[in-house]
Amino acid sequence: MTILEQTLAAIRPADPDALAEARAHQDRLTKPRGALGVLEEVAVRLAGAAAVNPPPLPAPAALAIFAADHGVHAQGVSPWPQEVTVQMVGNFLAGGAVANAFAAQVGASVTVVDVGVAAELAPAPGLTHGKVAHGTADMSLGPAMTVEQAVAALETGITVARDLVAQGARCLVTGDMGIANTTASAALICAFTGRDPAEVTGRGTGVDDETLARKVEVVRRALRVNGLDGSSRSALETLAAVGGLEHAAIAGFLLGGAALRVPVILDGVIAGSAALAAAGLASDVVDHCVAGHRSAEPGHAVALAHLGLRPLVELELRLGEGTGGLLAHPLVCAAVRVMHEVATFDSAGVTDKEA
Amino acid sequence: MTILEQTLAAIRPADPDALAEARAHQDRLTKPRGALGVLEEVAVRLAGAAAVNPPPLPAPAALAIFAADHGVHAQGVSPWPQEVTVQMVGNFLAGGAVANAFAAQVGASVTVVDVGVAAELAPAPGLTHGKVAHGTADMSLGPAMTVEQAVAALETGITVARDLVAQGARCLVTGDMGIANTTASAALICAFTGRDPAEVTGRGTGVDDETLARKVEVVRRALRVNGLDGSSRSALETLAAVGGLEHAAIAGFLLGGAALRVPVILDGVIAGSAALAAAGLASDVVDHCVAGHRSAEPGHAVALAHLGLRPLVELELRLGEGTGGLLAHPLVCAAVRVMHEVATFDSAGVTDKEA
Repeated sequence: MTILEQTLAAIRPADPDALAEARAHQDRLTKPRGALGVLEEVAVRLAGAAAVNPPPLPAPAALAIFAADHGVHAQGVSPWPQEVTVQMVGNFLAGGAVANAFAAQVGASVTVVDVGVAAELAPAPGLTHGKVAHGTADMSLGPAMTVEQAVAALETGITVARDLVAQGARCLVTGDMGIANTTASAALICAFTGRDPAEVTGRGTGVDDETLARKVEVVRRALRVNGLDGSSRSALETLAAVGGLEHAAIAGFLLGGAALRVPVILDGVIAGSAALAAAGLASDVVDHCVAGHRSAEPGHAVALAHLGLRPLVELELRLGEGTGGLLAHPLVCAAVRVMHEVATFDSAGVTDKEA
Repeated sequence: MTILEQTLAAIRPADPDALAEARAHQDRLTKPRGALGVLEEVAVRLAGAAAVNPPPLPAPAALAIFAADHGVHAQGVSPWPQEVTVQMVGNFLAGGAVANAFAAQVGASVTVVDVGVAAELAPAPGLTHGKVAHGTADMSLGPAMTVEQAVAALETGITVARDLVAQGARCLVTGDMGIANTTASAALICAFTGRDPAEVTGRGTGVDDETLARKVEVVRRALRVNGLDGSSRSALETLAAVGGLEHAAIAGFLLGGAALRVPVILDGVIAGSAALAAAGLASDVVDHCVAGHRSAEPGHAVALAHLGLRPLVELELRLGEGTGGLLAHPLVCAAVRVMHEVATFDSAGVTDKEA
């Protein structure tokens, strides 16, 4: 079997016994039932994913930033020049980006993966070579990737997940860098959810009204050119047609984490759209994902609703890089810590609420 | 001057120069302008509060849990017996409560302050004695506290803030424990915002419909009995009439932090209502506060809107103890870290967006 086939075969759904045990456990802790709101469900979810209650503490975390370029940039969908992708890779490696500051705050390692930057990158500490192509082809003219390229990028993501877990990571956080990648995300979200481009295409890191209108039309054209406007194609074909190399790698990263029962915190709309592709390949992958945040991009809420995930942080971030996922990590850890450290009514001698 | 008078006199509003410098600084960092959403405003806010840009990292944090009982418990406003207050104090001191787990997650110290528990507490490590009374009087029959008691509790809170800062805390987090204290919170919110009890009174840690209806009527009676239904009384008189001892102490804790220019993260509805009282005593105190979260209690959103604060975490918590404030601490730190660690477009050689 290929790495991808092995990985897909290894993914299991949430364990029902662990889910039930975790719910019962929550109700014995010295707090009013349900008082931790959404965090109770996070802890229960991680118990199901790990198939054990309490679930392992999801720390330390490892952030992987998958960087790639996009042929569709030529259509004028971003106000940022394409070379910003490679410049930001340099910034990540130098420790100067927001993702580095947030990773330091939560104690996460940072790995940058060149899965498709349109430039040659010199080897550097912290940089993983996984280049499949010098950027994708222009999806508004034809498929962004061949199926073989998409599989190669998926397997890069799986391998990065495996390596990080082997190095001790107990939680994975998705990150991305790729000028124009919200355009590819919008196309993936349309293809996987059936929504119209006008509903899910957003301003990314800040485009004006004219560029936004062009971006919507480019997404619409990409879907039509690739036969994704209504007709159904396989998840892999869809990912190849309108995804980015970082989307494919992130989808693989999710699959790789899920196969090892290590939870993955999704960052923003790039991860959300990649998760739709991953779920198309193995629907149970979603049981191993936590939605870190909801970005300002309209397609992100659509993707999360389709996946059935509720985001933990909603602070109007629209940066990517893994920043929203990193912010959620302490919240996820706090949710799980409760299951390990909090006393029960019986053990603490606290009187329970009158029935 | 008394401690309270000294403290009120020392509080300054946000520094306009530091605010302006922080905003300009945000726009030079290697991220699209505004891409950190609400966190950019948090960092700017803390620069204004500290009167310097970048503001100091708000770490380590210190949580103070102010514990007290409420005479109004006799009106049947909570399904929990009053002795749970003292039992939970024991749980905090033993490290078994959710607040302890969350504090461990974010590296915060935990101090429990007996400002008015209706029982004698033996001295214990981590327990600060600041008892003003064995609980308040029943506010539905008359004032909950005398003005002298309210001042004593305010000064307990100020002293705790001073002591924690002297011990090295660079961020304070409010916590509370007091069975029936959401009832007092609702009354304070009505008195300070003019809203009707039916709009702001909630289910606290989980009351049924019948108890909720009674709770609304008890709040209404407390406002009427104390002359707070429409007529205006001083902030101090209002706090004494319908507040709890922990509300007064938390108001003092906010004032004490603000006077020392150390930011305070507000937990839930108890802190929100206490902040209304603190703002009534010194309106500039609000510039030094960050709203940690928004709880499920309806009055909390009303209080935050009145204060002009936007909460960082919205996960339907309804626990108190400081849990929501603690969860916000890494987010606040992340926001400030950006100002210290992230490269500028110039320094990193990253091309800025096309104008």
